[in-house]
Amino acid sequence: MSMPERVTLVEVGPRDGLQNEAGTIPLETKLTLLDDLAEAGLQALEAGSFVNPKWVPQMADSEQVFAGLQRRSGVRYTALTPNLQGFERALAAGADEVAVFAAASESFSRKNINCSISESLQRFEDVTAAAQTHKIPVRGYVSCVLGCPYEGKIAPEAVEGVTGTLLDMGCYEVSLGDTIGTGTAGSMSRLLDVLLAEFQADQLAVHCHDTYGQALANILAALLYGIATVDASVAGLGGCPYAKGASGNVATEDVVYMLDGLGIETGVDLEKLIAAGNRISAALGRETGSRAARALVI
Amino acid sequence: MSMPERVTLVEVGPRDGLQNEAGTIPLETKLTLLDDLAEAGLQALEAGSFVNPKWVPQMADSEQVFAGLQRRSGVRYTALTPNLQGFERALAAGADEVAVFAAASESFSRKNINCSISESLQRFEDVTAAAQTHKIPVRGYVSCVLGCPYEGKIAPEAVEGVTGTLLDMGCYEVSLGDTIGTGTAGSMSRLLDVLLAEFQADQLAVHCHDTYGQALANILAALLYGIATVDASVAGLGGCPYAKGASGNVATEDVVYMLDGLGIETGVDLEKLIAAGNRISAALGRETGSRAARALVI
Repeated sequence: MSMPERVTLVEVGPRDGLQNEAGTIPLETKLTLLDDLAEAGLQALEAGSFVNPKWVPQMADSEQVFAGLQRRSGVRYTALTPNLQGFERALAAGADEVAVFAAASESFSRKNINCSISESLQRFEDVTAAAQTHKIPVRGYVSCVLGCPYEGKIAPEAVEGVTGTLLDMGCYEVSLGDTIGTGTAGSMSRLLDVLLAEFQADQLAVHCHDTYGQALANILAALLYGIATVDASVAGLGGCPYAKGASGNVATEDVVYMLDGLGIETGVDLEKLIAAGNRISAALGRETGSRAARALVI
Repeated sequence: MSMPERVTLVEVGPRDGLQNEAGTIPLETKLTLLDDLAEAGLQALEAGSFVNPKWVPQMADSEQVFAGLQRRSGVRYTALTPNLQGFERALAAGADEVAVFAAASESFSRKNINCSISESLQRFEDVTAAAQTHKIPVRGYVSCVLGCPYEGKIAPEAVEGVTGTLLDMGCYEVSLGDTIGTGTAGSMSRLLDVLLAEFQADQLAVHCHDTYGQALANILAALLYGIATVDASVAGLGGCPYAKGASGNVATEDVVYMLDGLGIETGVDLEKLIAAGNRISAALGRETGSRAARALVI
């Protein structure tokens, strides 16, 4: 099996994860989590989201998160920015990188961000243009790449279109989200067959949800295609794996366990990562969503 | 990705699974489970175990299980037989196939079956000889192929030795068990690199536990090596995925979900399989260990 020698993990727990957890999370808890994750060796941390707090109250304190960060050298602290206003807040807060969020499914786009795919992409052009001026890298997310809760299967060509537009407008990378976790190693492969005819592997990342238990197999499939950037959420934050309908982010610990076993470098210390996941799980009063973490607790 | 077009699933839930569940399971529950699984399209069902009931009380009714079976054509009903006495009981009960159980780890062999690896293999020769006389196929299991709770890592060469002996004495296939689930796609690949230099892919099966969440990725790795027989346990019977130290058989539903997505034929109807898993889970008063089953419940 031919695979990348090194994988960059993008830790989405503090944003994508916490945003989907119940209850209000104290600022101090978020800051501790971010510091724990950096200490564990993660170098890309999605730290907050500059969206309207009316829609995402869990991220209303993102300014304070960025202000309170113990910045570490070599670590990128990133933020989600849905529009120019969000970008300006992220810039003022000192985000190292921003991300825009599109969907490969028209219905999901309308229900999730209240506009069509093309409207969202137009809005993101303002963000990428402003980011270019300020030399801030922009990452693109595409959700529902392997399935949509409203439309079912999504054609790889739909993903290709959105991905191409995001790269064209200046995103340095597009993260392919299997938002509802219905994908398999088969559909991941068919998607990458199409995308890699058009784009380079280093322009793509995968963002797999474990709702159907498929995330690690899907990530393995992506690695075999040369994909070397993987999103994950410590402790599986953002969807308790026991709850029905949970979003089910793949747990970073489980990904690192697999990558360690494959001899793929990540720079992450699994023990420290597990400690970070266990600490935030305890703070949230939930069990960890990482199987490796549960198995390794003596 | 090049993979087999068809995979044979060996359903171990009624034996390996139920043996590791707490409490006594009524005969009727076992018979219903076996019938549900056959109805779902599974064609190899591990139905019981002819071991000393003092050691495995959950399997003490294996004679009654075989006597009570609604046999379906095309379905193999198999049994574990640790020695000649067990084989004779299995033969009298009408088992279509028997299995012997060795370990790749000396310490595990002593703790699990109270004898050295070579003593166990010697004992199995009586079974395979008798089975040959009666034209009963014998399957070999090797446990701890990717790790041992007492010895840690296990060298692929140790697995190769035991596998070779089992095949030499007449086992038609050896199932490679990652008994404690510590394996990864990496260690599975390294193991198969060694074994496939010596044996054919159709002489091997994989038996992955999901304790560290790695089972599907490990199975995917094995498929890429041409392995076309996969053991699994409906509803993840034999280890509640939430309990610490659970053995964690991979859930058949999750395997079938992946194989369906890969376009690999199994002959199994996922909906019926999920219904079977949900029924036995309800009977045991446990939640299903299958993520696909949990996700697909509306």
